[in-house]
Amino acid sequence: MNQHHHHVHAELPQGDSPILVEVWRGNLVESRHRAIAAVVDADGDVVRAWGDIERPIYGRSAIKPLLAIPLVESGAADRFGLGDREIALACASHSGEPGHVEAVNAWLARIGLSAEDLECGPHYPYFEPAAHAMLRAGEMPTRAHNNCSGKHAGFLTTAVHLGEPTQDYVRYEHQVQQRLLGILEQMCGQDLGDVPRGIDGCGIPTIAIPVGHHALGMAKMADPKDLSPARAAASARVLKAMTAEPWYVAGTGRFCTEVMRVTGARAAIKTGAEGVYMAALPELGFGLCLKIEDGNGRGAELVMGHLLRHFGIIDEGEAEQLRQSLTPTLRNWAGTEVGSIQPAAGLRDSAPF
Amino acid sequence: MNQHHHHVHAELPQGDSPILVEVWRGNLVESRHRAIAAVVDADGDVVRAWGDIERPIYGRSAIKPLLAIPLVESGAADRFGLGDREIALACASHSGEPGHVEAVNAWLARIGLSAEDLECGPHYPYFEPAAHAMLRAGEMPTRAHNNCSGKHAGFLTTAVHLGEPTQDYVRYEHQVQQRLLGILEQMCGQDLGDVPRGIDGCGIPTIAIPVGHHALGMAKMADPKDLSPARAAASARVLKAMTAEPWYVAGTGRFCTEVMRVTGARAAIKTGAEGVYMAALPELGFGLCLKIEDGNGRGAELVMGHLLRHFGIIDEGEAEQLRQSLTPTLRNWAGTEVGSIQPAAGLRDSAPF
Repeated sequence: MNQHHHHVHAELPQGDSPILVEVWRGNLVESRHRAIAAVVDADGDVVRAWGDIERPIYGRSAIKPLLAIPLVESGAADRFGLGDREIALACASHSGEPGHVEAVNAWLARIGLSAEDLECGPHYPYFEPAAHAMLRAGEMPTRAHNNCSGKHAGFLTTAVHLGEPTQDYVRYEHQVQQRLLGILEQMCGQDLGDVPRGIDGCGIPTIAIPVGHHALGMAKMADPKDLSPARAAASARVLKAMTAEPWYVAGTGRFCTEVMRVTGARAAIKTGAEGVYMAALPELGFGLCLKIEDGNGRGAELVMGHLLRHFGIIDEGEAEQLRQSLTPTLRNWAGTEVGSIQPAAGLRDSAPF
Repeated sequence: MNQHHHHVHAELPQGDSPILVEVWRGNLVESRHRAIAAVVDADGDVVRAWGDIERPIYGRSAIKPLLAIPLVESGAADRFGLGDREIALACASHSGEPGHVEAVNAWLARIGLSAEDLECGPHYPYFEPAAHAMLRAGEMPTRAHNNCSGKHAGFLTTAVHLGEPTQDYVRYEHQVQQRLLGILEQMCGQDLGDVPRGIDGCGIPTIAIPVGHHALGMAKMADPKDLSPARAAASARVLKAMTAEPWYVAGTGRFCTEVMRVTGARAAIKTGAEGVYMAALPELGFGLCLKIEDGNGRGAELVMGHLLRHFGIIDEGEAEQLRQSLTPTLRNWAGTEVGSIQPAAGLRDSAPF
């Protein structure tokens, strides 16, 4: 279906996903998280892998940087004068803080639309103080509060720019989604015409792609040497926007935001539901994808932080600065420290701390 | 340390926890949950087991029925005229609905204490409409809103009855906790003097006990033939209270409540944090304990429901009635059905549906 298929060359044995994360309480490991993880370069060579990286997973929201490419590549972002904040929001699972919601509404107004045109369902903000403030004020959430509203605004912007109908843009058959499917095929190097798919939390299709091929897509964003000039420029601009405006990618206290505030242009990282996490590492030219077998986000953050440390994206001093994000302590309702989330041996052995 | 140690006789191979739960989205298994599970009789014979049932776990809130025994056995419940609702609350992780909180406050008043004497931290109710109503009214949660407030009220009631200090009753060294440790040793058939322990969400110690021995403790409650008359009567009364007042054990829409409303006296089931679930099945004389390796509650509910169906506690018509609890569908923010939680082959093969 396209001429740019790459093969991801894995050399590690397949099989059960290894235990990479331990959740400690007192002096016992209470729970464990298994993961598949792949670090790949733009040629599809595997730099490092854990578990069966040929297993197809849904990229969920971690794939948003790839989904933001057409917004820039089509010329839509330039036509409507979008800046880093809007492009970061197109890649975001934001916390629904007032600044996120206001920016999405202002953006939609700029393309002649409103939150009513978004096809994602409303929900209260992830950021608890924002949700509580709305509840205290008797306010109901709008579709702009949905954590994916920036991505949806990006889809609408591209559709408006290209003269496509805006209605039903979440449907698999719509030009917006078909265009994204083509991008994913080219970037991830997989024919996606007949693979499993599902519906994401915000209503758009989510497509089954092997972990290693997701990593390849991110690697090509990080190292766009073989992409067309327009695709390469779009990839670079998306990553620059995410790393320049990390608060717009997630929000106050969130792992994506806290880490990118420290790593700057060295890492664009993005979380997704069901324990998926992806990264593009421009300095190294690597892409990274990981999936926690059981879908738990606490495990995904622990592995992502550890791999960034392992590959030197986070240095020792920065690791200290990010300590609560990288090796979180667990506290109970009274605020007492009761445990911690730690790398398991299979992950520990691979990293310098 | 006591004369009633039983050995749990497992015959199944140890090793990795088997995958018992699949989370489907579209036509792909997106996430998987592994579990250890044991069904044991009061003699410690293993009826059925999955995974390494000798692995120690924290029982968390699933152990509350065992922790409620001294409240009855000591005579405290009778002295203060407690009924099924209070005893059910002593076993509860309640949702903080107004009826739960009012009952705990009324109970505390009856023993001359108040929510200020509870040593669990406050949190907003688990039941979202109750939490939202409080936020809209500008109300802050009290310690009585903590999901464990009934258990703590039970601890205080026993301490008051026995003339012990009420302060610091959550501490490992306090008579309340030492008495509970003795009960757990006797019921679970394990010396617990030198095992790992941690602090639970509500501040009390949580003790590492093998999965199979947790199941043994529940089996002895279900079939108290070898217990002292006072212990046997206390066990029966605790189970009767839970199954007679299931709303007080959890709350509106919760799995424990919904299932016990259907199963009545045939099953007392109790959820705990980090994917633990336990049951006492008086009709069969079995105890059941399961632990999801990764700590996810959705997996624990699926396995519990399936095992109750397997052992005939839930019949075919009741399974239909409980369909959304037993095999839940997943919906996104817009209410679209996007997937389901299903038993994996390792669990499916063991059950009649």
